[in-house]
Amino acid sequence: MGTEGRTDAPTGEALLKPNERLDDLQRSGLRIIQEPTGNRFSTDAVLLSSYCAAKGRDRVADLGTGTGILPLLIWAKWKPERITGVEIDPQTADMASRSVLANNLEGCIDIVNADLKDAPQMLGKAKFTLVVSNPPYIRAGEGMQGLSSRRALARHEIGCTIDDVAEAAAALLVPKGRFALVHRPDRLCDIMVALRANGLEPKAMRTVHNTAGDVPSMVLVTAVKGAARGLKVSKPLVVYDGQGKYTAETEAIYFG
Amino acid sequence: MGTEGRTDAPTGEALLKPNERLDDLQRSGLRIIQEPTGNRFSTDAVLLSSYCAAKGRDRVADLGTGTGILPLLIWAKWKPERITGVEIDPQTADMASRSVLANNLEGCIDIVNADLKDAPQMLGKAKFTLVVSNPPYIRAGEGMQGLSSRRALARHEIGCTIDDVAEAAAALLVPKGRFALVHRPDRLCDIMVALRANGLEPKAMRTVHNTAGDVPSMVLVTAVKGAARGLKVSKPLVVYDGQGKYTAETEAIYFG
Repeated sequence: MGTEGRTDAPTGEALLKPNERLDDLQRSGLRIIQEPTGNRFSTDAVLLSSYCAAKGRDRVADLGTGTGILPLLIWAKWKPERITGVEIDPQTADMASRSVLANNLEGCIDIVNADLKDAPQMLGKAKFTLVVSNPPYIRAGEGMQGLSSRRALARHEIGCTIDDVAEAAAALLVPKGRFALVHRPDRLCDIMVALRANGLEPKAMRTVHNTAGDVPSMVLVTAVKGAARGLKVSKPLVVYDGQGKYTAETEAIYFG
Repeated sequence: MGTEGRTDAPTGEALLKPNERLDDLQRSGLRIIQEPTGNRFSTDAVLLSSYCAAKGRDRVADLGTGTGILPLLIWAKWKPERITGVEIDPQTADMASRSVLANNLEGCIDIVNADLKDAPQMLGKAKFTLVVSNPPYIRAGEGMQGLSSRRALARHEIGCTIDDVAEAAAALLVPKGRFALVHRPDRLCDIMVALRANGLEPKAMRTVHNTAGDVPSMVLVTAVKGAARGLKVSKPLVVYDGQGKYTAETEAIYFG
């Protein structure tokens, strides 16, 4: 008992700043600091953390880590060697760093407050075997009315475009290293073009559908640095059944 | 009655060469000359003929028309102003021409025996409002053992690549003209990259699944010449229900 334990509530609570709260991730006793009114983690992150299929020896980088949700979920599920989350916004990066502390994961997860475009220079080129990203989905200028600057930064390509993310991922990865990302289907052409232009060949793709037969709400893509051409498209991933409950597959992803 | 009628069997039969037969397309009384052992039309052509949504004023080009199935199906469904099918193989182009004659559609469909790479020069640049293609699916060199040269030409990128097809389509189309194609999901990145590189922006996409929940067997894509970015991915198109019968949607596409 005491400050070493991962579920040590006082330690976590003591790390909170005003307007923040500590949410239970419902896996491995992990918790995350979030602002109820800010950018909170979503299904996208949960699905990507499963889809990326990290291995025990992977050195993982998360480009645009936000509150650090992907490093936490990936650590919980896969226990890779090390995960580095890169976040441009100082306040958000600070929240992510405190979430790492709150879970006593300083030896497993690093949070770096930096522009992901500078990540290869800061972290070293070809130092990672897996890069993940849940990047801003929306092109700069589209539908930005009424968003705070931090929310806008997380959702819109103000600080970085999909090309920037692909370029940084390619530089960070070792040859044959993998880049797994989640994005919106309407950006699929942008994604494919950016990946190939940066030597990251799209090898696997899976569309995500709220219910069977729906239009896809998201797309998961894995590219491999320097791989041969040829994309394997998986069967659709369906989140909810007809009764509004998680499908067996989503249930397993969330709680398996 | 007599030689003017579209279902005039003797006229059609008289156009057959050895090892050919006249198959009923089960729509508008149309028939097509095919070789039972050669390249016969498939679900791909039927789905693309529906998906392309030709309009009455469209001037349509079909790149790699084969036996002319797409011009026949598109004419049956949409009655556009004119359809030109381009086919590189002289024997196959001849079969397609005779199918046009067998259906008395000389005023509606032209078959041109040419390399599609020469089509813009031969047919004129920016002369078409809609280009369709069911191009060879397979990269040259992959799995070509045991195929006759004509079958190989239709299925493998020996005579043309997806880049060639996109380049020809872009040159044939008027500004804002549409290019609709069907291809294999494993070539999706190649398709996206080739389309955008040629100024054809992918605007709509639909995956085709044999049954609900299957991996996609095909992908339908519509690109628009000079359009803004942004892809609309439709709900999956499911061909068969759980009992091996066409779904209501496929039934409507085939016989509607």
